[in-house]
Amino acid sequence: MATLGDIGLSAALNILSALIFFLAFALLRIQPFNDRVYFPKWYLKGLRSSPSHSGAFVRKFVNLDFRSYLRFLNWMPVALKMPEPELIDHAGLDSAVYLRIYLLGLKIFVPIAFLAWAILVPVNWTSSNLNGKQLLNVTSSDIDKLSISNVPAESPRFWTHIVMAYAFTFWTCYVLLKEYEKIASMRLQFLASERRRPDQFSVLVRNVPPDPDESVSESVEHFFLVNHPDHYLTHQVVYDANKLAKLVKKKKKMQNWLVYYRNKFSRNDSKRPMMKTGFLGLWGDRVDALEYYTTEIDKLSKEIAEERERVINDPKSVVPAAFVSFKTRWGAAVCAQTQQSRNPTLWLTDWAPEPRDVYWKNLAIPYVSLTVRRLIMGVSFFFLTFFFMIPIAFVQSLASIEGIEKAAPFLKPIIEIKFIKSFIQGFLPGIALKLFLIFLPGILMIMSKFEGFTSLSSLERRAASRYYLFNFVNVFLGSIIAGTAFEQLDTFMNQSANEIPETLGVAIPMKATFFITYIMVDGWAGIAGEILMLKPLIIYHLKNFFLVKTEKDREEAMDPGSLGFNTGEPRIQFYFLLGLVYATVTPVLLPFIIVFFALAYVVFRHQIINVYNQEYESGAAFWPDVHGRVIIALVISQVLMMGLLGTKEAAQSTPFIIALPVLTIWFHMFCKGRYESAFVKYPLQEAMMKDTLERAREPNLNLKGYLQNAYTHPVFKESEEDEEEDHEVGGDSWETESARVPTKRQSRRNTPLASRISGVSSPSLPDAVVEQP
Amino acid sequence: MATLGDIGLSAALNILSALIFFLAFALLRIQPFNDRVYFPKWYLKGLRSSPSHSGAFVRKFVNLDFRSYLRFLNWMPVALKMPEPELIDHAGLDSAVYLRIYLLGLKIFVPIAFLAWAILVPVNWTSSNLNGKQLLNVTSSDIDKLSISNVPAESPRFWTHIVMAYAFTFWTCYVLLKEYEKIASMRLQFLASERRRPDQFSVLVRNVPPDPDESVSESVEHFFLVNHPDHYLTHQVVYDANKLAKLVKKKKKMQNWLVYYRNKFSRNDSKRPMMKTGFLGLWGDRVDALEYYTTEIDKLSKEIAEERERVINDPKSVVPAAFVSFKTRWGAAVCAQTQQSRNPTLWLTDWAPEPRDVYWKNLAIPYVSLTVRRLIMGVSFFFLTFFFMIPIAFVQSLASIEGIEKAAPFLKPIIEIKFIKSFIQGFLPGIALKLFLIFLPGILMIMSKFEGFTSLSSLERRAASRYYLFNFVNVFLGSIIAGTAFEQLDTFMNQSANEIPETLGVAIPMKATFFITYIMVDGWAGIAGEILMLKPLIIYHLKNFFLVKTEKDREEAMDPGSLGFNTGEPRIQFYFLLGLVYATVTPVLLPFIIVFFALAYVVFRHQIINVYNQEYESGAAFWPDVHGRVIIALVISQVLMMGLLGTKEAAQSTPFIIALPVLTIWFHMFCKGRYESAFVKYPLQEAMMKDTLERAREPNLNLKGYLQNAYTHPVFKESEEDEEEDHEVGGDSWETESARVPTKRQSRRNTPLASRISGVSSPSLPDAVVEQP
Repeated sequence: MATLGDIGLSAALNILSALIFFLAFALLRIQPFNDRVYFPKWYLKGLRSSPSHSGAFVRKFVNLDFRSYLRFLNWMPVALKMPEPELIDHAGLDSAVYLRIYLLGLKIFVPIAFLAWAILVPVNWTSSNLNGKQLLNVTSSDIDKLSISNVPAESPRFWTHIVMAYAFTFWTCYVLLKEYEKIASMRLQFLASERRRPDQFSVLVRNVPPDPDESVSESVEHFFLVNHPDHYLTHQVVYDANKLAKLVKKKKKMQNWLVYYRNKFSRNDSKRPMMKTGFLGLWGDRVDALEYYTTEIDKLSKEIAEERERVINDPKSVVPAAFVSFKTRWGAAVCAQTQQSRNPTLWLTDWAPEPRDVYWKNLAIPYVSLTVRRLIMGVSFFFLTFFFMIPIAFVQSLASIEGIEKAAPFLKPIIEIKFIKSFIQGFLPGIALKLFLIFLPGILMIMSKFEGFTSLSSLERRAASRYYLFNFVNVFLGSIIAGTAFEQLDTFMNQSANEIPETLGVAIPMKATFFITYIMVDGWAGIAGEILMLKPLIIYHLKNFFLVKTEKDREEAMDPGSLGFNTGEPRIQFYFLLGLVYATVTPVLLPFIIVFFALAYVVFRHQIINVYNQEYESGAAFWPDVHGRVIIALVISQVLMMGLLGTKEAAQSTPFIIALPVLTIWFHMFCKGRYESAFVKYPLQEAMMKDTLERAREPNLNLKGYLQNAYTHPVFKESEEDEEEDHEVGGDSWETESARVPTKRQSRRNTPLASRISGVSSPSLPDAVVEQP
Repeated sequence: MATLGDIGLSAALNILSALIFFLAFALLRIQPFNDRVYFPKWYLKGLRSSPSHSGAFVRKFVNLDFRSYLRFLNWMPVALKMPEPELIDHAGLDSAVYLRIYLLGLKIFVPIAFLAWAILVPVNWTSSNLNGKQLLNVTSSDIDKLSISNVPAESPRFWTHIVMAYAFTFWTCYVLLKEYEKIASMRLQFLASERRRPDQFSVLVRNVPPDPDESVSESVEHFFLVNHPDHYLTHQVVYDANKLAKLVKKKKKMQNWLVYYRNKFSRNDSKRPMMKTGFLGLWGDRVDALEYYTTEIDKLSKEIAEERERVINDPKSVVPAAFVSFKTRWGAAVCAQTQQSRNPTLWLTDWAPEPRDVYWKNLAIPYVSLTVRRLIMGVSFFFLTFFFMIPIAFVQSLASIEGIEKAAPFLKPIIEIKFIKSFIQGFLPGIALKLFLIFLPGILMIMSKFEGFTSLSSLERRAASRYYLFNFVNVFLGSIIAGTAFEQLDTFMNQSANEIPETLGVAIPMKATFFITYIMVDGWAGIAGEILMLKPLIIYHLKNFFLVKTEKDREEAMDPGSLGFNTGEPRIQFYFLLGLVYATVTPVLLPFIIVFFALAYVVFRHQIINVYNQEYESGAAFWPDVHGRVIIALVISQVLMMGLLGTKEAAQSTPFIIALPVLTIWFHMFCKGRYESAFVKYPLQEAMMKDTLERAREPNLNLKGYLQNAYTHPVFKESEEDEEEDHEVGGDSWETESARVPTKRQSRRNTPLASRISGVSSPSLPDAVVEQP
C-alpha cells in the first residue's frame, strides 16, 4: 500500500515529465523546420506554406526570436480561443464533438468533486475505523482515512454515501441528457447546413443476388428503376480491386526506394548505389540499385495496367454491391431506411458512408459469411480478453518490490533506497500496464475488419467498444482483484450474484492509490507526451532527409495523424469509470481525474486545430456509444457501491441502492428512444427541406455528373492521377485536385510512405529527376 | 415420489376424463339446439343457417338419428381433412400458423423421442446407480431407473447424453429454421395474395406536435403534403371517444335488461315485472322494470347523442394521432419505415394495424409517459413474478399427503386408502397450480394495456411473453425447487453462477413424475375440455332463454371465442420447455408430450374450423416470438444439462456442452437477421408489385372513397348502425353490413351481452317488440 509520500513523489515525477514534454514541445514547435510536424493541418488546408521562402538560411531551420521562447505555454490560450462553430468548420463535427467528451468529464466531475470534498471527505475523516484497526497491525495509508474504509461497519454515516450516490447519479444523468440533446441538434444542424455531399444522395446496396441473364450493373439498374422509379438516378458498381491495390502499394514502395537511392547517388556521385535483392537486403545477388528498381517499377507498371484492364473488363471482378444514387435526398433517405426485397438478406440497403470512409475490402461479404464471422470474432474476443491477463499479472507481480527482490535478490540494496522504492511502487505498475495495451488496438481493428463492417467509422466504433470491454475486464477488474485470467473467471463463476460485488467492493478502496498513479502516468504525462508528436517528428525528418525532393514530397512526408477514436475514446471512458466508481468511495481521486480532463481538453483542442487531419467525417455518429458507456460506468459504480455497503453490514440500506441501477438503465432506454435515431436515421422532413431549397437555388444542377464518379475505388483514382502527373511534372495541381476529389487524402494517410512522384510509366520523368541536381 | 402405479392411475383418470369430455362433446354437438355453440364460425361466415327451419318440433332440439351417435369421434378426421390453403382462406393466417406451433412440437419431439428411447433409455436402464442406493434406503421410483439418475457419477456413459444433447439441439434448430423459412414465405404470400385492405395503405401517426395555429387535422395534412407530396392521399383523425364508448356500453346493458323483462312479461302477462333500483337489485325503490329501463335508455340515448356532438365538434377531443392513407402501398411502406421529423419522438409513424386490431384507448399517449409506464410495469411485473409464488407453494404443500395429514389429522384414515392417496398425489398438485394460473392472463393483459401498445395483437404478444416468463419462474423453477418466492430469489442471489444450474440440474430428474401428471391434467384432460366449450354453451342457452327474440339476437348470443394467443401460446411453450429439458434427462416424459401435441393439434384444428372467430388478423406476426421462446427453452435445457453433469462429476465433459448454448444463441441471431424482418417490415418490391398490378387492373379505382372511413372509432359506427336499424327493424342487413364494415364484429365480440336491437331513440320499436308475441 503506497503512502501519501509515494503518491506525492509520483505526482512530482509526473508533473515534472509533463512539464518537460511541454517545454520540449514549446521549443520544437517554434523551429521553422518542424513547422510541418506541428502545424500540418494548416498546410493541408492550404492556409500555410513553408516558412523557408524568405529570410536567412539559418532562419529556415532555427527560430532566433528569443522572445518566443519565453511564452512557451502560450499555445494553451490560443487553443482555447477558437470558438466551437469555427472549430466545426475547421476540423469537422467529429473532432468538435470528440472534444466535448472531455468537457463532459469536466461538467460531470467538477461539481461532484466539490460536493464530495465538502461532505464525504469530512464524514470519512472524522470516523475512526482505521485507527482502531491500526492497533491490530493492519497498515493503512493516509488516503484511506479520507475514504469510505475509515467508516466503521454498521455506522449510520453510510446514509451520507447513499444520498451522495443518488446525487451523483442524478447529476451525471442530467449532464448526459443535456449533452445528448445538444449533440443531436449539433449533428442535425451540421447535416443540414452542410454543402452537397455524395453520401447524402447515395445508398450502399449489398448482397445483390446473382442473375444468370444480367450483369450486376444491369441487375441493379433494373431493380431500382422498377422499385424507385421516380427517384433513381444512377449507380456505380464496386470492383474487387484488392489485388490492384496491392500492386499499386508495392509500386509506391519501390518508387520510394528508387528515390532514396537516387538521392544517395546525387549526394555521392562517385559510386552508383548497389544493393542485394534478397530478404531485407541481407543476401542475394548484388545489383545496381537504380537499375534494379527502375526495371522492377516498369514491370509493376505493366502489371498494374493489365490488372486494371482485367478488373474493369472482367465481369467476375465486379462484386455484388453497388452505390446507388438518387435524384433527391428524400429518395436516398427512403431507400436507406426501408427493406427492398422479400428476402431480407438480399438487396440490403444502408446509408452510403462518405467516400473517404468506405472500407472497400468488405463490401462483398455475403450474409451467411458475415454471421459466421461475427460468431468467430465473438468467441476469439472472449478468449483474448480472458487470456491476455496472464502476462499483465505476471509483469505486475514482477514490478512490485517483493517481486523484484524475489526475482533478483542482488538488486535488493538498490531497491531498498527510499527514492527508488517509491519510484517502483508509484511508477512501474502503471507503465507495465500501459506497454501491454499499446499492441491491443491493432489486434482489435483487425478483428473488426474481419467482421465485415463497411466503413472506417463503424470499424473504429466496434474496435472502441471491444477495447472498452477489454479495459474493463483486464485493467479495472484485473487490477482490483489481481490474479491470472482463469483465476478471476473461476472466482466469478464460483461466487454468487451477491458475493461478486462484495469481493470487488471490498477491494476498491484499497486500490485507490494504484489508480491515482495510473491516472498520473497515463493521463497526465501521457497526454503531455501526445502533444510532442515524437514519432511523427522523427519520421518526418527521416523522410525529409531521404525522400523529399520537391515541395510536394514534403507535403507527403507529413503525418498529421488523426484522433484515433478506437483507442482514444475507451481511454477517456476508463477515466469516467474510475471517477464514478471512486466518487463515493475515495473522493481523493477526483481532483486527479479533473486535472486529466482539463489537460487533455486543452492538448487535444490544440492538436485538432493544428495537427490532426481526420480521415473521415461521420457527423458525431459515435455519440450514442459514448453515452452508453458512461451509463455502463454509472451502473457498475452503483453495483460496486452496493457490494461495498453489503460488506459493511449496512444491509438495511441495500434496497435504496437497488433502485439506482434500475433508474439508470431506464434513463438510458429513455435517452435511446429519444435521441438515438438522430444518429442512425435521416428524417424525411430534413431531406425534403434541403431538396426544396436546392431545387430553388440551383434548378439546373447536373447532379448526375456530380455523382457519377463519387464512389470510385481509390486505387483507380490514384492510378489516374499517376497518368495525369506524367503530363504535369512538378505542377502544383495538388490544391485544386484536393478540392475536386476529396477522397484522395485518406488513401494517402494510410500509406504514408507513398511518394506521389511516380511517372515511371512515362519515359521522361526518371531522367528529369536524375538530372535535377 | 410417485411410483409407476401412481402415474398409471393418474393416466387412467385423465384418459377417462378426456374420453368423457369427448363423449359429451360428441353427444352435445349433434343436437340441433347446440348448433350455434359448436359451429358458430359457419354461421358468422353465412354458410350455415339455423337447422330449425324444417322438420318436426322435437327434431329442432334433439338429434334422433342414432347412427350419428355411434360415430362419436368422427369429427377428428374431418378436422384434419381441410387442406392448409383452404384453412388460411377460411380462418386467416394467424390461426393456420398457430396450428403449426403444435405441428412444430410434433416435428421436433417425435424423432427426438424415437432416438431417446432407442439409445438413452437402454443406456440409463442398464446402469445401476439407484440399485446401489436403494440399499441405503433412498427410495426411488421405476421411472427414475429410466432416467439419467440411474447412471452413476463419473460414468463414461454420460458421453451418450452429451452426444444426444448435440443431436437434439441440431434437430431442433433444423426444424426451427425450416419452419421459420416456411412461415416467412407464407406470410409474404398471404400479404401479397390478399385482397385490398385499408391497412396496406395506411400508417398510424402518433405524437403529432401541438400547433397553436392549426388543428391536429390541418397540421397532419400539411405535414404529409409537404413531406410526402407524391403519395399522400387522405387522413383520419382519432377522437377521444372513451366516454362515449362507456355510455354506449351502458346503454346496451340496459337494453339487455329491458329485453329480459319484456320476455318475462310476455311469458307471464298477469303482472308487470318489478325491480329495485339499488345495487344488484337488492335494495332501493321498487319500480316497474319496463318503465324504468325505457326511461333510463331514453336518457342515455340523449346523453350519447350529446356526447357524440361534443366529441365531433370539440377540437379538444381530437387526440394527437391520426391514420394517414397514401395513394400507393409503396408510399405507405416508405412512410411506415422511415423517420419523419428531426425530433424522433414526434410524428412517430408505424404500420397501421388492421382496423379491427386497433386498441383505440392507447393512441394518445405521449412518449415520456410511455417510457415511464414501461418502467412501472417492468418493476411491477418483477414483483408479481416473485411474490405470486407464495400462495402456490402454500397450496402445493397443503396438497401433499403429509400436508393434508398435518393440517387435518382427522382425514388421515381416508387419505391412507390407496386409491385416494394416489389421486391426491397424482392429481391435486396439478390442479392447484392450474387454478392459480387462470387469473393471471387478465392481469397481464391489463398491464400490457397500461404500457400503451396500440394494437390488440401487440397487446397479446406482450402479455404472452410476460406469461411465459411468469410460467418459467413460477411453474417451472417453482416446481423444481419448491419454496416461497423470496427463498428462491435469495437462493439464486447467494449461489454462484456455477451452482445455480447444479441445484436445478440435480432436482430435475426427481421432478419428472410431477411434470408427467401436470402434462396429463393440463395437456390431456384440459385440451379435451376445451372442445366441450362448457362456458359458451351455458351462456348461450341462458341468453337464448332470456334475451333472444329474433334470429339476429340468436346470432349475437353466440360466443365463438378466439384462440387467445396471450394464454395459449405460453402454454404450448411450456411443453416445449419440458420436452427439451427432459429429452436427455428423463426420456420417459416425451411420449406424454407427443400425445399432448397431437391431441391439441386435432382439437384446435377442429375449433378453428368450426368455432373460433379471430378478432383480428396480424398475418402471423407472432412467429418471431414463438421461435425465440423455443430457442430460450433450448438454451435452458442445455444449461441445466451442464449443471446436472457438473454434479455427476463428469467435469471433463463440460466444455463440450458450453459450446452448445453459444451455437444456439448464434443460430438465433442468424435466424433473426435472416427472417425477422419479414414480420416487421414490408418490402418495397412487394408493395411496388401490388401497386403496379392494381393500377393495371383497376385504373379508375376510387381509393380515397375506399379509405375515407376505414379507421373510424367503432363506437361511431355502432351508433350509426343504431340509427340505421331504427329504419330497418328485423331486416336481415347483417350479412351485407358485415361485408361493408369489417370492424363491427370485434366490438361485438368484446361485449357479448350486447343486443343489437336498440331502437330506443326511435319511438316505434319498443311497442313493436312488446306487441310481437
